[in-house]
Amino acid sequence: MKQKIAVLGPGSWGTALAKVLVENGHDVTIWGNKKEQAEEINTAHTNKNYLPTITLPEGLKATTELAVAVTGADAILFVVPTKAIRSVASDLVAVMDTKPVIIHASKGLEQVTHKRISEVLLEEIPEDKRQDVVVLSGPSHAEEVAVRDITTITAASKNLVYAEYVQTLFMNDYFRIYTNTDVIGVETGAALKNIIALGSGAISGLGFGDNAKAAIMTRGLAEISRLGVAMGADPLTFIGMSGVGDLIVTCTSVHSRNWRAGDLLGRGHNLEEILANMGMIVEGVSTTKAAYELSRELDVELPITEAIYSVLYENQDVKTAARQIMLRDGKSEEEF
Amino acid sequence: MKQKIAVLGPGSWGTALAKVLVENGHDVTIWGNKKEQAEEINTAHTNKNYLPTITLPEGLKATTELAVAVTGADAILFVVPTKAIRSVASDLVAVMDTKPVIIHASKGLEQVTHKRISEVLLEEIPEDKRQDVVVLSGPSHAEEVAVRDITTITAASKNLVYAEYVQTLFMNDYFRIYTNTDVIGVETGAALKNIIALGSGAISGLGFGDNAKAAIMTRGLAEISRLGVAMGADPLTFIGMSGVGDLIVTCTSVHSRNWRAGDLLGRGHNLEEILANMGMIVEGVSTTKAAYELSRELDVELPITEAIYSVLYENQDVKTAARQIMLRDGKSEEEF
Repeated sequence: MKQKIAVLGPGSWGTALAKVLVENGHDVTIWGNKKEQAEEINTAHTNKNYLPTITLPEGLKATTELAVAVTGADAILFVVPTKAIRSVASDLVAVMDTKPVIIHASKGLEQVTHKRISEVLLEEIPEDKRQDVVVLSGPSHAEEVAVRDITTITAASKNLVYAEYVQTLFMNDYFRIYTNTDVIGVETGAALKNIIALGSGAISGLGFGDNAKAAIMTRGLAEISRLGVAMGADPLTFIGMSGVGDLIVTCTSVHSRNWRAGDLLGRGHNLEEILANMGMIVEGVSTTKAAYELSRELDVELPITEAIYSVLYENQDVKTAARQIMLRDGKSEEEF
Repeated sequence: MKQKIAVLGPGSWGTALAKVLVENGHDVTIWGNKKEQAEEINTAHTNKNYLPTITLPEGLKATTELAVAVTGADAILFVVPTKAIRSVASDLVAVMDTKPVIIHASKGLEQVTHKRISEVLLEEIPEDKRQDVVVLSGPSHAEEVAVRDITTITAASKNLVYAEYVQTLFMNDYFRIYTNTDVIGVETGAALKNIIALGSGAISGLGFGDNAKAAIMTRGLAEISRLGVAMGADPLTFIGMSGVGDLIVTCTSVHSRNWRAGDLLGRGHNLEEILANMGMIVEGVSTTKAAYELSRELDVELPITEAIYSVLYENQDVKTAARQIMLRDGKSEEEF
């Protein structure tokens, strides 16, 4: 059944998801705060800063007016950067006129509070103004979804009915949705893998080989699982799309911003310079800080995260940090 | 403490492991049945058919006489192809004069019986002639270990003392050993990932992108876990070095024979021609048959393995098989 959907955030991922929804026959409006970008989407049917080679469907509308985007919406999809989630949700409450399903596809943890994105959304949007919150996450470069390459992701909600609603919205012959009820596991997997992507990039930038790369990804996954479990996740979720799947695609593909930032760090570039040249948000940098602080609060050992934190925030030399984590004492791998 | 160790199987992995042991100060003899190869190792200190660019340590001895290799051995390391394990073990029993620790680093399942390699070794070598069996497995291209790139692997034994003994034998500043007590999980992870590597290669050969590759690896890991759990493994083992770790390195590196064979299949080449040109054993081909038969016995659903089986053994078109597994109905990912 045709649904009216607002997509908040016209970056590469928001635009690719909006394109899928239009192709599936839904009525989609994408909201952002840049006038020229909205005009470009509406008239030229492109979004060249984010998906340079893609022609967007003519049915996709864009606006800079939040109220225009969300009026009458059956579902509202958040794809804004983590640091903007709370303020956009708060603005949204003032202009909503329906009781929509809330979906988010952002990947991070809120600074200072260390809250997951669904927690922030549940706090800011009162229960009588929304249905449940559903998390959309998995191994999915926007660039590939936009050209209809086969992609599989997870829709997670405590209440399976809402996960299945989102599955139905997005599912087609190139975009495959699996459902999951472990929201905490799916959200922590999505957020924390960006830290490991920075580390995996750094290992490559330093000139290590494929064995070392597999090692940091595997020990990184163990680390993600440990922190996720301490936050309430099911450890088996990390073996799924939002754990292993997203980790693989983020750590082994040139499309990944977090991996590229890590690779440049490994090659000796300076963090400020890297972030300035990247032009897009590198969520892993702030997620590293949140996870580092959380590990202290929850008393969970995160050696890779600590090493990356020391490079990003304490001017530790990247080579020294890498040797520290690669050359720890032999251990049992059965400690979660 | 210096140990006397026999390494059975002078392929690339056996040679790289023997090199590590010599560098760690042990007395190592490698056994194989080719006279010219043994002479090459003893006199030129190379093994060019398997590690073309590597100079081996002068301390590494080679022989074609099994009795010479194993006399006085504290430990015996099997690195022969899966199909040769039983006969070499049986020959070994006739010439052993010590009660050594048995280690193996082979990856497969025995044809027809579908037994794990440690099961075959335990059957062939009587209890009064050996200590425990330890499995060595993890993300480790021989080529990278041979040039001392940092590598991490798992030593697994039901009895932790023997896993720790093997950890001590191999551990140095570039070769890191984690211990594990889930022998079934480590062995099934090691064997079954070669099936997924064939599939991942085929997906690339067919021209799919990184999202599809992450998808087949993730659903492949779920499939490995399902069969492994049905065989008695702990599902969390598959998140470790011998599960995710080995899967990553086998599915994302050009060094992997199984991946390359799959890639050629995806590009339309014929199986016989691929195996003839490869010149080394592609364990995934026979493991696919064993896993397919096991899935019937144990009533476990293995859609990726079934699709690959249909290509390898039933002349199914690779494109059709790929579309079948990529385009199944939407599911929950919480089914193990």
